[in-house]
Amino acid sequence: MSNVKVILDCDPGHDDAISIILAASKVSTLQIEAITTVAGNVEVEKNTLNALKVCDIIGLEDVPVAQGADRPIIKEKEIAEEIHGESGLDGPKLPENPTKIIIEQHAVDLIIEKVLESEGDITLVPTGPLTNIAMAMIREPKIIPKIKEIVLMGGGTFGNWTPAAEFNIYVDAEAAKVVFESGAPITMFGLDVTHQALATETVVNELSTIDNKVAHFVVELLQFFNKTYKEHFGFEAGPVHDVCTVAYLIDPTIFEMKHVHVDIETKGEHTYGMTCVDVLGVTGKEPNVQFATNLDGNKFWDLMKKALESYS
Amino acid sequence: MSNVKVILDCDPGHDDAISIILAASKVSTLQIEAITTVAGNVEVEKNTLNALKVCDIIGLEDVPVAQGADRPIIKEKEIAEEIHGESGLDGPKLPENPTKIIIEQHAVDLIIEKVLESEGDITLVPTGPLTNIAMAMIREPKIIPKIKEIVLMGGGTFGNWTPAAEFNIYVDAEAAKVVFESGAPITMFGLDVTHQALATETVVNELSTIDNKVAHFVVELLQFFNKTYKEHFGFEAGPVHDVCTVAYLIDPTIFEMKHVHVDIETKGEHTYGMTCVDVLGVTGKEPNVQFATNLDGNKFWDLMKKALESYS
Amino acid sequence: MSNVKVILDCDPGHDDAISIILAASKVSTLQIEAITTVAGNVEVEKNTLNALKVCDIIGLEDVPVAQGADRPIIKEKEIAEEIHGESGLDGPKLPENPTKIIIEQHAVDLIIEKVLESEGDITLVPTGPLTNIAMAMIREPKIIPKIKEIVLMGGGTFGNWTPAAEFNIYVDAEAAKVVFESGAPITMFGLDVTHQALATETVVNELSTIDNKVAHFVVELLQFFNKTYKEHFGFEAGPVHDVCTVAYLIDPTIFEMKHVHVDIETKGEHTYGMTCVDVLGVTGKEPNVQFATNLDGNKFWDLMKKALESYS
Amino acid sequence: MSNVKVILDCDPGHDDAISIILAASKVSTLQIEAITTVAGNVEVEKNTLNALKVCDIIGLEDVPVAQGADRPIIKEKEIAEEIHGESGLDGPKLPENPTKIIIEQHAVDLIIEKVLESEGDITLVPTGPLTNIAMAMIREPKIIPKIKEIVLMGGGTFGNWTPAAEFNIYVDAEAAKVVFESGAPITMFGLDVTHQALATETVVNELSTIDNKVAHFVVELLQFFNKTYKEHFGFEAGPVHDVCTVAYLIDPTIFEMKHVHVDIETKGEHTYGMTCVDVLGVTGKEPNVQFATNLDGNKFWDLMKKALESYS
Repeated sequence: MSNVKVILDCDPGHDDAISIILAASKVSTLQIEAITTVAGNVEVEKNTLNALKVCDIIGLEDVPVAQGADRPIIKEKEIAEEIHGESGLDGPKLPENPTKIIIEQHAVDLIIEKVLESEGDITLVPTGPLTNIAMAMIREPKIIPKIKEIVLMGGGTFGNWTPAAEFNIYVDAEAAKVVFESGAPITMFGLDVTHQALATETVVNELSTIDNKVAHFVVELLQFFNKTYKEHFGFEAGPVHDVCTVAYLIDPTIFEMKHVHVDIETKGEHTYGMTCVDVLGVTGKEPNVQFATNLDGNKFWDLMKKALESYS
Repeated sequence: MSNVKVILDCDPGHDDAISIILAASKVSTLQIEAITTVAGNVEVEKNTLNALKVCDIIGLEDVPVAQGADRPIIKEKEIAEEIHGESGLDGPKLPENPTKIIIEQHAVDLIIEKVLESEGDITLVPTGPLTNIAMAMIREPKIIPKIKEIVLMGGGTFGNWTPAAEFNIYVDAEAAKVVFESGAPITMFGLDVTHQALATETVVNELSTIDNKVAHFVVELLQFFNKTYKEHFGFEAGPVHDVCTVAYLIDPTIFEMKHVHVDIETKGEHTYGMTCVDVLGVTGKEPNVQFATNLDGNKFWDLMKKALESYS
Repeated sequence: MSNVKVILDCDPGHDDAISIILAASKVSTLQIEAITTVAGNVEVEKNTLNALKVCDIIGLEDVPVAQGADRPIIKEKEIAEEIHGESGLDGPKLPENPTKIIIEQHAVDLIIEKVLESEGDITLVPTGPLTNIAMAMIREPKIIPKIKEIVLMGGGTFGNWTPAAEFNIYVDAEAAKVVFESGAPITMFGLDVTHQALATETVVNELSTIDNKVAHFVVELLQFFNKTYKEHFGFEAGPVHDVCTVAYLIDPTIFEMKHVHVDIETKGEHTYGMTCVDVLGVTGKEPNVQFATNLDGNKFWDLMKKALESYS
Repeated sequence: MSNVKVILDCDPGHDDAISIILAASKVSTLQIEAITTVAGNVEVEKNTLNALKVCDIIGLEDVPVAQGADRPIIKEKEIAEEIHGESGLDGPKLPENPTKIIIEQHAVDLIIEKVLESEGDITLVPTGPLTNIAMAMIREPKIIPKIKEIVLMGGGTFGNWTPAAEFNIYVDAEAAKVVFESGAPITMFGLDVTHQALATETVVNELSTIDNKVAHFVVELLQFFNKTYKEHFGFEAGPVHDVCTVAYLIDPTIFEMKHVHVDIETKGEHTYGMTCVDVLGVTGKEPNVQFATNLDGNKFWDLMKKALESYS
């Protein structure tokens, strides 16, 4: 399979970090064009620092990291420290001062430039709020027909931040509305499927047997993440939401997909940020999203294991 | 177990009809104080006629039937002919002119009178839109603390009429808002559990072995209902939503319940009529609803079978 | 001019009280079929008591008074004690226990009965929230084509309770939506015109010269009302909003009217209860309201003066 | 009076054009740092071309013109050709190909750069939708405390595009929400005051006596604008809305102002884009806007006349 050029737009974040690690591993078929950061799990500066630290740990030297939006487009800022800790990546011991530094260009400008200069072969992989992607589309609508695909983590038929809304979409529902209504091809990994990507004790034990620095780092991330998911949501294990996007791009056969229509709610009193996924086809609207419904857990964690083993 | 006094507020409707049949059977511990009708599956006049015909078929002579609201409180009227057929009870051959007639009193007045005169021991069992119940509460708020329990079919964490909303709540979300915010104790059977109450081919075959008029009638209802559910929603079998309410009142051990907070969305662009069920407890709001999460299918259909066998 | 049969649906309230007094005066061409009360300026029980006291003072013995809705249809109850005082009619010394008593029938039922029994010649005159009128329409849609006209005080192109909404409509915007979308002929006196009906010092002085009990009562009402309007809104004088409705029915030449489309906002974040009056005709929607734009102050207060002089 | 540094952010547009002409005249105390354009009256490319043509006509050579947002942030694009004609500046004969050209920098970047580099002495003067200003604030929140003042045309206590909303705010209400909630000092010229700035026949006749190219151009603009305002809105004369902003910056004594709180409605069904101006102070919220209530027509048109006479 030929390489897929991706821009990872993220807010690391435990599962974002693992997502980068999978994408940069030797089993990956992805070519990371850039990593861009956005306010989400914590403030954008912290997310950027975390991205740089992750790059340091895995030796990702040539990929540019650009910082993006510091706030949602319209809504007031909201963060998720209760899940990811104060640093946004609590748990493992991280390098204090990463050697890697960000480029000067704003993430939104980098995305616009990369897509405009491309041959229509760049896939955007947003695993945080969709602020950067939407800002790029508003600023330069010409990028829309040149985006190959947007493979995102967000939403679902139920919520985790409110009963109706998942965190990434809730944090900037107006951005999500812009992206979902843009006409660009969207592949969506929502809670329906990401809650199947659980780093259970068995999984963590198995990954713990891999003896290299990156694998140790991932195991420490999972241990912290599992702890907060248990405390905050009562889950037996933490779901590595964002990793689904990269796993899908490497091996789509891990997932079952359904072509559906999705609307974004921005007006509701109790439903702001809901992704209204028309699973039953009752709206009569044209499908605009490839929606992941199921994953094969064995295949998923096998891929992850091989990825970690590929580091030395 | 002592008898439970109920008012069945319904829009028959295939599953409403079966619900009445279960409630009136010899295995039932319910004492039906009245049957009231509401616009819902079809127009209120048709629903009323259907209720009278069902009473005729099962010989329910002493229970008063009163007609209620002809339209939602605020929203424009919407019906569900595609599911229940033009009569609202298509399928079986029904008596042309039922001998039973409605009482003169409006359903809303009957509900108010019965509850006010009671010793706080009346359970309301709405299996259609909540218009009558809300109208009674608005008209005479003094009934609210005297209602023992409201055991209703409606809503869920997902929808069937829109991606977010179930039909009964969607048809009159403002009524639902009034009822859910009233402070009266609410037990809710939404799509999460009613989609587990499937009249599969095995179930229908088993019920077909019962040889009495009422059982034949129910089997014909299920055959029609299964057909429209297959055509409209692609379901293998029709879910007998409303029957869950009565089954629960006869034998609560059939169901698993969870105490949760539920808000009703009335403002959303794509989410009007959604019941926002806080399954994960993320809102921090006090639970106001006993929410059914699972049913024991064997127990459920055993009860139904015994009920049909009790007719002669 | 032949008599106009009216039902005064009100929440007295200083200007409601004066409205009743004008309608019952010897210069009036109105035939008061009933007075019905609604929660609004204060709780419905207080409004009812005030209506009965006003009837006592002016000797209105034969007109039935019926109590209506105690709360808005959907919204939480809100009252306006800061304008009308704790009793809802602070200022004048009122009879402690009025001799007149209410009839047993609920206001909503009385309205339905009177309209259904009429020859299509009853005008409804709501000067409080539209709860009773809407409840009657929802309960018995057959009244809608038999209502001659609804002449109401409420709304305007600007607000007094919020920047966008006038009190009567704000208190129960869902009721207003039902009424304005019903198709019944509506004549609307909003703040645009009622703020021209100011009981200035000159006006009050002139009315003070009339020496009878009813005139004294009205002057005391105006003095209190002017005081709270000055304190609360910084107005030089209080506008006798509700009186416009009755004045119009007695002498329509006092007012300039415009046929316009009006929508009721029930979803807005800052605009709940706004009457969106299409003065410029930009919506392209059919007019559904006769909207009062201007009044002739001299004619208006002359009528009022003559009305008070007609009492002895 | 020392010079006021301004960025004119506009969508010319007849009144925008006159606004530029006033700002660039010899009677002006404004120092135009830049002209930026935005989609509004017509598409952004047309607005840009019109801005360049106006610069050509009045010989404004040194001021950079930068093109900005092509679409609202969230809402679908909407334009006002019925008012400004197909070109956005129909009426006068315009130079086919302006000699002036735009700079390469995007308007949003120019605004950010100018404000960040300034000593906090730049006033933004938006006379179109607020898209560029909001995009700059979202992209670089650090500009907010460095903006001296935002003097804008938009909104009012009533609307012209819908019964509740004025065109500029309606076209991009989310942008308006960002700007009004930013904390930057806002001075607002809404329809309440701009509808007093009418280019009546008397005014146009007087301006027609001035014999220079620029004055002739303005008279032709006014003649076309008056015609469409008469046809579309039934106005006797067209209101030169945008000119109020520049007139105020040159001579604030022309206007009466009130310090009020303004909220932007983005959720309403009939009120999207309304500026909820709390004229009566009923919300209890802190004022965030200097709101123009009245203008002195003689002073206003005298200033305009002197400005036109200052061209040769």
